[in-house]
Amino acid sequence: MASLARSTLRLRATSRFPVAARTLTTSPHLRAAAKPYFPDEPSAPKVVTTIPGPKNKAATAELDKVFDVRSLNMLTDYTKSIGNYIADLDGNVLLDVYAQIASIPVGYNNPHLRQVASSPEMVTALINRPALGNFPSADWAHVLNTGLLKVAPKGLNQVFTAMAGSDANETAYKAAFMYYRQQQRGGPQAEFTAEELETTMNNQAPGSPQLSILSFKSAFHGRLFGSLSTTRSKAIHKMDIPAFDWPQAPFPSLKYPLEEHAQENAQEEQRCLQEVERLIKEFHNPVAAVVVEPIQSEGGDNHASPAFFQGLRDITKRNNVLFIVDEVQTGVGATGKFWAHDHWNLQTPPDIVTFSKKAQTAGYYYGNPALRPNKPYRQFNTWMGDPARALIFRGIIEEIERLNLVENTAATGDYLFAGLERLAKQYPEHLQNLRGKGQGTFIAWDTPKRDEFLAKAKGVGVNIGGSGVSAVRLRPMLIFQKHHADILLESVEKIIKQL
Amino acid sequence: MASLARSTLRLRATSRFPVAARTLTTSPHLRAAAKPYFPDEPSAPKVVTTIPGPKNKAATAELDKVFDVRSLNMLTDYTKSIGNYIADLDGNVLLDVYAQIASIPVGYNNPHLRQVASSPEMVTALINRPALGNFPSADWAHVLNTGLLKVAPKGLNQVFTAMAGSDANETAYKAAFMYYRQQQRGGPQAEFTAEELETTMNNQAPGSPQLSILSFKSAFHGRLFGSLSTTRSKAIHKMDIPAFDWPQAPFPSLKYPLEEHAQENAQEEQRCLQEVERLIKEFHNPVAAVVVEPIQSEGGDNHASPAFFQGLRDITKRNNVLFIVDEVQTGVGATGKFWAHDHWNLQTPPDIVTFSKKAQTAGYYYGNPALRPNKPYRQFNTWMGDPARALIFRGIIEEIERLNLVENTAATGDYLFAGLERLAKQYPEHLQNLRGKGQGTFIAWDTPKRDEFLAKAKGVGVNIGGSGVSAVRLRPMLIFQKHHADILLESVEKIIKQL
Repeated sequence: MASLARSTLRLRATSRFPVAARTLTTSPHLRAAAKPYFPDEPSAPKVVTTIPGPKNKAATAELDKVFDVRSLNMLTDYTKSIGNYIADLDGNVLLDVYAQIASIPVGYNNPHLRQVASSPEMVTALINRPALGNFPSADWAHVLNTGLLKVAPKGLNQVFTAMAGSDANETAYKAAFMYYRQQQRGGPQAEFTAEELETTMNNQAPGSPQLSILSFKSAFHGRLFGSLSTTRSKAIHKMDIPAFDWPQAPFPSLKYPLEEHAQENAQEEQRCLQEVERLIKEFHNPVAAVVVEPIQSEGGDNHASPAFFQGLRDITKRNNVLFIVDEVQTGVGATGKFWAHDHWNLQTPPDIVTFSKKAQTAGYYYGNPALRPNKPYRQFNTWMGDPARALIFRGIIEEIERLNLVENTAATGDYLFAGLERLAKQYPEHLQNLRGKGQGTFIAWDTPKRDEFLAKAKGVGVNIGGSGVSAVRLRPMLIFQKHHADILLESVEKIIKQL
Repeated sequence: MASLARSTLRLRATSRFPVAARTLTTSPHLRAAAKPYFPDEPSAPKVVTTIPGPKNKAATAELDKVFDVRSLNMLTDYTKSIGNYIADLDGNVLLDVYAQIASIPVGYNNPHLRQVASSPEMVTALINRPALGNFPSADWAHVLNTGLLKVAPKGLNQVFTAMAGSDANETAYKAAFMYYRQQQRGGPQAEFTAEELETTMNNQAPGSPQLSILSFKSAFHGRLFGSLSTTRSKAIHKMDIPAFDWPQAPFPSLKYPLEEHAQENAQEEQRCLQEVERLIKEFHNPVAAVVVEPIQSEGGDNHASPAFFQGLRDITKRNNVLFIVDEVQTGVGATGKFWAHDHWNLQTPPDIVTFSKKAQTAGYYYGNPALRPNKPYRQFNTWMGDPARALIFRGIIEEIERLNLVENTAATGDYLFAGLERLAKQYPEHLQNLRGKGQGTFIAWDTPKRDEFLAKAKGVGVNIGGSGVSAVRLRPMLIFQKHHADILLESVEKIIKQL
């Protein structure tokens, strides 16, 4: 604790950050008065070696023998990580606003999750893994109803469970294709033709039809073959992998600050919507569904307005294609609403909403019973998810409710955004296109020296990720509070000064 | 226990099964002397209601409101399932030779796995789920080396971890495509061209090339878009889902008993091998890899000889395409060797071996370092598997080693096969094409009234699955012993007599 206190003092002593000065000049005791969710959390980051430090480097070389480590960020000591703080092997403890690529919601070593993970129910789920489609446990409906269905998006009361974001999206696409063809056939009672039955075994139409999913430029929906065909974020994700001939529409490229470019941005969104509708009407491989992220995340934190998404809902309705909202990264509270599409005030809900990441499990929600394929075993696989992870999600939901973490994220996000706005005025060259206002802590900005910015972040005690080619993306946990925001703001300024 | 004893007596009293009569006439005490791995296991199945019983039906109706139940087999009480026995909500306890579609290796509520699942290490893994490619835990190399790499197939010392069989196969395919194009470019140093970088963002060649994976008729490799394009088992799996234009070769259709059709079968295998080589040389979308199951499982339990697989290895080597062995269902001991391809005595190992199911986690093994893509983030996703499930696999491996379960499965399988051979002589119309000799308990046969056979099985106390259109497939756990085989043989005869 002595070193933590020193570190805190050191950070404070070098701070010339004006915005959060109020908080920063308070004593550690007063800071603690902010009622931290994790009472044992460090009060500040602790950086004791260059990062990666010597132990990290040695262990990485060992791991490299059997496991590709070229994307490795840091070898983590999870036993010493707590709340918003991630610890490495060398004793460095960083404020983590990347959170396992936006997938940790309620903090490292959350005490309630520890209880859930230690429960007899969890042990049973871990050691008796069911084939959920064939042999679900007798309490599976209860687990669903008290867990992931309790937070189901409005209007969507059913779920297909999956393993991760990619297969959540791909099973959603499959549901869309089956639904599309069922409508063409004239309903669920219509039988497959002999030609369909034969051609599908050869991967040929009409049994395996050349239908498509429309996605957007810069979108990210996963990396397996179907999801990767809708991913358009970076060439390195797609290179050398066969892809389906599916259409992509432009995603709005908005100008910031939004309030100064309202008309221009509205026109840009209209242009994109028109192109969506044109592609639906004209693309040579008929479009069964449109898939969109509420905020394009991996692709660079690209936002659009509620009006744009309302327009998408209208276009898909009127052209009778499904509207799939990919909430893998935006879901579970990070935008200050439980689901990011709650911001849109849609007249009718999306047809399908996919989830993963902060849910710690995955799948898709739907409401229309006709989206259940017309025969069993059309949408099926051995495990269809993992009840152990579904129990963790239930624990996360309980923790979110107990601590009002969605509200916390909305309020902390506003506070953080205001601080970043002030910084952007002070350092306009380093903090451009600040975005995510009113979107909880789902905040990003562009900076010309992005990779350098991210690399230097660890040195000042924060773990931050990027998105697209020039964005710094903030993805704190839902337990990120104003006193963490103060440390982050201070750190951002320190990094900028080093650039 | 009283009802168990009654049930046992009832089963015994009605038995006219000659083969296992020795065992069946022994007292329960003598039976127990066979040193069961699970001392608390029931000594026989217990059927107390029609199946599904009233509680099962009521609970299924409840689940149906939120989750597709049309593939539901039985709602399971996992707290009461033990060893080889699966319990339902109504108090029925069945001998389980389906084992969650071949995915439970060491028994329900295995005591050692219970310890693993209750360990502090497991709790940490459950509540601090890492993005394994970026922030693996400091002990990840240790977990791999003492777990899934300890049983790595000979010659393959590296692993890419995944979630389930489908993405294990699809990431293997991606590795194959990247490797293929890397060779075409002239090695790992060659940079992507501007045209490649541009076209891949539009899902077009050359960036997204029209390469293919060759699979076999009746194969099953998963249900996502890439894996489904190699799956050729049933139309219901593939219908309405867009597929890649990839080639399929015939899989040998062997005649049984093998010893009576040696020459004919050898010719059939040669015919199939020739067609594989022809397709590799001539198919319009160049073949980057051949994928094959050691025993086609979902597709009907179709076997081929070691010579066939040696031939495949030779053909793939000589044509410079990768040889991927899909051990998702055959792996982890069920065939009496840890990996089914251990039966083949290959001169050089497969390039890639995929696994899932009994491993309770998934991924692919490889040996050639050039199969690591030439740049980071080409083979990557957020979670890249689940350390909690990797810990379970390590516990399974420990249990397999402690109890010599692969040897047990080989011996029990021989015993069971001999019993089935005798039954096949007695009921030739009901037990055709018996196969899996010397393949552990990985045994199947064809029967004209297959679905009726499976439906009646529960009534006599066993849970059995099918494969293909006419096969009964046995997939007992690795803790299946001779006394279980006796019960199974007795039950098979009882079912046959009811048909």
